[in-house]
Amino acid sequence: MMRSPQEPNRNGGLRTPSPRQRNQSQFQSTVSVQKHRRFNILILIFRFAAFCFSLASAIFMFANSRGGSDLDSDSLRWYHFDAFRFVAIAAAIVALYSLFEVGASVWEISRGATVFPEAVQVWFDFSHDQVFAYMLLSADSAGTALARTLRDRDTCTANNAFCVQSAISVALGFAGFMFLGFSSLLSGFRVVCFILNGSRFHM
Amino acid sequence: MMRSPQEPNRNGGLRTPSPRQRNQSQFQSTVSVQKHRRFNILILIFRFAAFCFSLASAIFMFANSRGGSDLDSDSLRWYHFDAFRFVAIAAAIVALYSLFEVGASVWEISRGATVFPEAVQVWFDFSHDQVFAYMLLSADSAGTALARTLRDRDTCTANNAFCVQSAISVALGFAGFMFLGFSSLLSGFRVVCFILNGSRFHM
Repeated sequence: MMRSPQEPNRNGGLRTPSPRQRNQSQFQSTVSVQKHRRFNILILIFRFAAFCFSLASAIFMFANSRGGSDLDSDSLRWYHFDAFRFVAIAAAIVALYSLFEVGASVWEISRGATVFPEAVQVWFDFSHDQVFAYMLLSADSAGTALARTLRDRDTCTANNAFCVQSAISVALGFAGFMFLGFSSLLSGFRVVCFILNGSRFHM
Repeated sequence: MMRSPQEPNRNGGLRTPSPRQRNQSQFQSTVSVQKHRRFNILILIFRFAAFCFSLASAIFMFANSRGGSDLDSDSLRWYHFDAFRFVAIAAAIVALYSLFEVGASVWEISRGATVFPEAVQVWFDFSHDQVFAYMLLSADSAGTALARTLRDRDTCTANNAFCVQSAISVALGFAGFMFLGFSSLLSGFRVVCFILNGSRFHM
């Protein structure tokens, strides 16, 4: 073990540890920093996956227009259906939020500090994950129900591409929901760690 | 303050507290028990509300059959529609789960102990609250989308009672989801308290 007598006393002068104790706690804190880094990279991956899937879902739905002009009776537009509007807007909101969270995650990994103060950040992440996960699930369930009823009607025989594209968009939305749910679990774990230790570092 | 020298030593003989200290900690634990009781009664109320609303939602949907026999082409049955089946079954599952949780809550308030071991109970409550809340929201969103598309078709002009009854069932389901969400918040709080203190008693 290396000795580092020039290292400043981190305990605020209350108790002077022996060099051996100090080295050991340094070693433990290095392990904890590495674990914390791996945890953050896992969050980043989930966030990025949620961003990709929800963005793809939003693009597929926003581009979902078939038939001639808006005035034709047989033209199909995503914004003529309430549930599809909900799917498109929910996916777009989740994509924006996930993009922000990817940025926040990269910031945290590179600089070692959260964007907002730590207490705000952990609660912000967890609450928004929960609310947006509920919203996305609700939108995609409604989209599924609408897509199934459209299949029973003449709509899908007349213009199958519209139905297929809607179904793909809804499926991508469900994948986005899944990754948002995983992120929500991890950010919930961070909240518990923060309450336990007064720090987002786990254990 | 009253003295109670015959009170057994609760600290396991490690440290004998003065009678004054002992009385104070007794007083504090009485306050904590009262708080805990009020918290449990709040959970019981939310559980009972979730039970009532989801049971009503399930009954409204299960009884939702109009028209003559099953063979008539104009007869409407809830089980002919995927989304309505999902609404009925999800509401029934949540009603059963809430009934069990009402029982567990009453047991805990009357006997002061949980049905399962404490660690199992707090995690069981929280995880099931979360999963069933997602399920109920998903079912009711799908039900809403179907009810809206039925209104655009001839179905509702021909048999309005069927549509109205479906809409009521879905609305009751959303109310049930709301109370289940509140219960989920409280049981999440219990999980955090359990991790913090090693006991479900808060603070």
